[in-house]
Amino acid sequence: MEEKAVVGIVMGSMSDYEGNVSFTCETLESFGIPYEKIVLSAHRTPDETIEYAKTAYDRGLKVIIAAAGGAAHLAGVIAGCSTLPVIGIPMKTSTLDGLDSLLSIVQMPAGVPVATVAIGKAGCKNAAVLAATMLGAFDPEMHKKIEAHKADMKKNVLENMKF
Amino acid sequence: MEEKAVVGIVMGSMSDYEGNVSFTCETLESFGIPYEKIVLSAHRTPDETIEYAKTAYDRGLKVIIAAAGGAAHLAGVIAGCSTLPVIGIPMKTSTLDGLDSLLSIVQMPAGVPVATVAIGKAGCKNAAVLAATMLGAFDPEMHKKIEAHKADMKKNVLENMKF
Amino acid sequence: MEEKAVVGIVMGSMSDYEGNVSFTCETLESFGIPYEKIVLSAHRTPDETIEYAKTAYDRGLKVIIAAAGGAAHLAGVIAGCSTLPVIGIPMKTSTLDGLDSLLSIVQMPAGVPVATVAIGKAGCKNAAVLAATMLGAFDPEMHKKIEAHKADMKKNVLENMKF
Amino acid sequence: MEEKAVVGIVMGSMSDYEGNVSFTCETLESFGIPYEKIVLSAHRTPDETIEYAKTAYDRGLKVIIAAAGGAAHLAGVIAGCSTLPVIGIPMKTSTLDGLDSLLSIVQMPAGVPVATVAIGKAGCKNAAVLAATMLGAFDPEMHKKIEAHKADMKKNVLENMKF
Amino acid sequence: MEEKAVVGIVMGSMSDYEGNVSFTCETLESFGIPYEKIVLSAHRTPDETIEYAKTAYDRGLKVIIAAAGGAAHLAGVIAGCSTLPVIGIPMKTSTLDGLDSLLSIVQMPAGVPVATVAIGKAGCKNAAVLAATMLGAFDPEMHKKIEAHKADMKKNVLENMKF
Amino acid sequence: MEEKAVVGIVMGSMSDYEGNVSFTCETLESFGIPYEKIVLSAHRTPDETIEYAKTAYDRGLKVIIAAAGGAAHLAGVIAGCSTLPVIGIPMKTSTLDGLDSLLSIVQMPAGVPVATVAIGKAGCKNAAVLAATMLGAFDPEMHKKIEAHKADMKKNVLENMKF
Amino acid sequence: MEEKAVVGIVMGSMSDYEGNVSFTCETLESFGIPYEKIVLSAHRTPDETIEYAKTAYDRGLKVIIAAAGGAAHLAGVIAGCSTLPVIGIPMKTSTLDGLDSLLSIVQMPAGVPVATVAIGKAGCKNAAVLAATMLGAFDPEMHKKIEAHKADMKKNVLENMKF
Amino acid sequence: MEEKAVVGIVMGSMSDYEGNVSFTCETLESFGIPYEKIVLSAHRTPDETIEYAKTAYDRGLKVIIAAAGGAAHLAGVIAGCSTLPVIGIPMKTSTLDGLDSLLSIVQMPAGVPVATVAIGKAGCKNAAVLAATMLGAFDPEMHKKIEAHKADMKKNVLENMKF
Repeated sequence: MEEKAVVGIVMGSMSDYEGNVSFTCETLESFGIPYEKIVLSAHRTPDETIEYAKTAYDRGLKVIIAAAGGAAHLAGVIAGCSTLPVIGIPMKTSTLDGLDSLLSIVQMPAGVPVATVAIGKAGCKNAAVLAATMLGAFDPEMHKKIEAHKADMKKNVLENMKF
Repeated sequence: MEEKAVVGIVMGSMSDYEGNVSFTCETLESFGIPYEKIVLSAHRTPDETIEYAKTAYDRGLKVIIAAAGGAAHLAGVIAGCSTLPVIGIPMKTSTLDGLDSLLSIVQMPAGVPVATVAIGKAGCKNAAVLAATMLGAFDPEMHKKIEAHKADMKKNVLENMKF
Repeated sequence: MEEKAVVGIVMGSMSDYEGNVSFTCETLESFGIPYEKIVLSAHRTPDETIEYAKTAYDRGLKVIIAAAGGAAHLAGVIAGCSTLPVIGIPMKTSTLDGLDSLLSIVQMPAGVPVATVAIGKAGCKNAAVLAATMLGAFDPEMHKKIEAHKADMKKNVLENMKF
Repeated sequence: MEEKAVVGIVMGSMSDYEGNVSFTCETLESFGIPYEKIVLSAHRTPDETIEYAKTAYDRGLKVIIAAAGGAAHLAGVIAGCSTLPVIGIPMKTSTLDGLDSLLSIVQMPAGVPVATVAIGKAGCKNAAVLAATMLGAFDPEMHKKIEAHKADMKKNVLENMKF
Repeated sequence: MEEKAVVGIVMGSMSDYEGNVSFTCETLESFGIPYEKIVLSAHRTPDETIEYAKTAYDRGLKVIIAAAGGAAHLAGVIAGCSTLPVIGIPMKTSTLDGLDSLLSIVQMPAGVPVATVAIGKAGCKNAAVLAATMLGAFDPEMHKKIEAHKADMKKNVLENMKF
Repeated sequence: MEEKAVVGIVMGSMSDYEGNVSFTCETLESFGIPYEKIVLSAHRTPDETIEYAKTAYDRGLKVIIAAAGGAAHLAGVIAGCSTLPVIGIPMKTSTLDGLDSLLSIVQMPAGVPVATVAIGKAGCKNAAVLAATMLGAFDPEMHKKIEAHKADMKKNVLENMKF
Repeated sequence: MEEKAVVGIVMGSMSDYEGNVSFTCETLESFGIPYEKIVLSAHRTPDETIEYAKTAYDRGLKVIIAAAGGAAHLAGVIAGCSTLPVIGIPMKTSTLDGLDSLLSIVQMPAGVPVATVAIGKAGCKNAAVLAATMLGAFDPEMHKKIEAHKADMKKNVLENMKF
Repeated sequence: MEEKAVVGIVMGSMSDYEGNVSFTCETLESFGIPYEKIVLSAHRTPDETIEYAKTAYDRGLKVIIAAAGGAAHLAGVIAGCSTLPVIGIPMKTSTLDGLDSLLSIVQMPAGVPVATVAIGKAGCKNAAVLAATMLGAFDPEMHKKIEAHKADMKKNVLENMKF
């Protein structure tokens, strides 16, 4: 039986997947976190986006991850319509290198936060790790996996620290 | 009898009015353009914002002006839900001087434009003038007022050009 | 019989066409909007630029689109000489990624607005869509096309939202 | 009996409290979230900072909030040493308006995320709201408070939307 | 008998004079350089601006100084219409600190240069000094004054270098 | 007999020549302006740089052009040591796209101006055109060449304005 | 008997002292480091600046600290003419907040480094602390003072960490 | 017998070596400075990083060089834990070109300086040269090598200054 998703990943465009949000998915899988992924646009499918956000808690999600670029409104709109923590990934853009995405996502007004991670690939991976820590704070099994993840990173550095 | 509004002004916060969007209103009044003004937040009142945008055309509006600051999603969300031209005013912010507002408003994805004007007060005035030109392209009476406005500006400069 | 242009597209340089302003043209064509296109430089052909702007309204244009990069003065100069709404497209530049173009176009002084769209290709497409919404506010046929355009965008997203 | 803290707030400097992190505290109090607050510096008290981070999970914390400005390393160092989600608040700086703080906090390398919120006061408030949503995802009582918070924000806007 | 102006100063707005372009005037006076000053706007008085630029050489001017802020097109438009060297002063702006003015003035396309000086007051003074050096290259009397100016600056530093 | 140089071109590095300062040379040649070119570094050959600047006027130069990138001090140091007008070309850099070069050159303190042109290739060409206008203000033959240059640019645009 | 200076402080302008470089002096005094201070300008007194830099090593200095703002060439010019380590302090500027000073100082070409510290007051203090660490690496007495300085900073934080 | 290292080089990631920190090593070798190199991460191996910093002085190091990118905390964390001078190299990043690295490294709070050099390759080389000058201030043999290095650079420029 398939596990029910606890993390929902929303991309503003299909083009955000390959080489970017795919890392979010892989990382969630490495933590064994069931997730769902969907393409939704704050500007092209506002109703579906809002519906997705409003029903997320009742469908059992614990965290929403939203990736978008440019005037990146996706994470903010979802944060406005959901009671769950929303993680925003600023996609790198061809014009302003993602500075536009970053500012559009992080500078939310008082009362409606978006948990913003780094621009681009690092952020795509980190959105998953951040979601894992949110779950791990309440789930001892997940917490052990985070400890293992940190131990792995450390081991990787230490094995190659002298060369 | 009061004229029906043809321009709708939406502010993200009550604090955007004094000293800023009030200029938009005054300028529309100086052109004799009937307008309505409302405070709506893409993040705090998403349903009302979307409803406002969706019904704008049928209620007789010809242009929507949206003013917001920071991660300024208001204009973009309205543009996603309306078939009318949407003018976005990037409010000056206390942290990044409105660069965040500007990029959040202007860098819209292909298919969903926002007609962005200057940051802050100049933009507040110009949103009204831009709306007037949109109306004036189809309304000879309004067009004459725009000609007069341009003549006035010119006269003002020329009267003081030597000092 | 060829339809009379209602949108005028002005480029600062021939090199702005391929891969950029060509999208503006294609998009206008997809809306069935008759347009004219011309290369004019605020710095190299100031007289012709101003003449173009001053005669635009009387020649039947409803909107002017101006694309330029760097110290991009084209849209602003045209806005100073025309009573029509002027849409400015900031071209991506090889040095500052178009931030120079954006600020040169959007930061217009009070009284002379330019409706600025996104930097580069997205902006090139959006200038056309924005022009369509300006026309659609007064033309029910065009308005239906905008509704169809929005429905198409939505359908495109929804068809691929799960993968 | 005093409740055990579930949120730990760390400030890089005593001067971050008044008018800034004090809002984080007030907001946590408004949600009835027990918290502890401490001043620790990644540069002046690295041992204590790391010790704080390493023991946070076992002391029962669920989230850590870290506020710092300039070359703001506090949140990143804590994130490196803790298995808990870490929220970073970029303080506004007197020189670069907090852009330095923002980039120092948000651009974390793959594997070690910091959940970054807005620069300055809005971020101070939002760090608390974000922490509340993280708790609320697992605590139905807290979830209700978040629903109430969102309803309050909405009511506040709607009561003043026409003026 | 009043000397004929050899430097023409053009301001985009009357408000550029006090505390800013007034320094340009004072500095020209200190060099004994006859000048004329005028307020002209590339956007509000395009015809007068172009006329001014086109007739400048024949009226005996050797250099034009143009000061403007924001989307600062004044210097560029004048450079497009004049065969004289044009010095551009980027005025400090209330929103982006003059970065917009600087990029709008300095990033001119190949073939139409503007000699750009520093943002704000330093630039206002330096526009005059730069004009003096242009004249001094061909006028031995003026050249001596520049030597004296440099000697004065040096003396000022050296007199106070130890304290 | 070879004509005596009236323009001196100084490059901070040999690598600034190909594809960049070579355009400055070509453009000066197209105006028939005799020039000399040299590689000198404000940091590696300060004595020679200062000597070059101090003797420039007496050797008959009328203008100095200095091209450098990064912390670009060349133009400023030369301007400090010469009574001639100094034109600064900010080279595009591999890290910050030439924004560092631009600010290092243009933000000169009161009393010591550098006439700054655009970043990179456009600036390289424009430095030569600007030098030509400085000469042309005092040399009717050169002035005619500038008129021809402007007419050429105009003709080029007009020949291709419709396509 | 007065001790011979081991640190030389150079300011680009007298106005850099009060409230800024005065902190550098105080901090050096708190470490008991003998220093000399002087006002010298890379642009107004190039000869004296270069002479100062060239003779610094032989006069017994171990480190030079140079503070300047805007197109801040002072530290770079000194670094070009001295074999000593040069610490550069980017002064906060009224226009670009010191970003211009920072880039002008830090982006030095390969071979001629400037040890750059933070913009403004923090940098003024840190230049002195950095100089102390350079001395302390070779002087056990000074090294003890640095240990004491670090212990003091730590104690200050720990005494106020709970409030 | 191998000489004991006097410079310690720390990289945040193995990927910082090839084409970047390798230049630091080569340059130190060209000065005959014994060094050690290690990969350590402020976020992945905080304990080892701090241990490295704390023991550096007693192990005989005179300078530490730390290279990192993005939210680059490595140099700052080491500076917090060591009494030695710490040189920070901001690595060029794929998203913000190293501006994030630069601000994360240079904007250190009062009391804990990092001697920051240029972004990327130039900085990698300059970190070594800066370390050499720090040593050379106390070591006459090293001082002679720095004089030779400066003479070499000068010779290189002068040999190719005319072409």
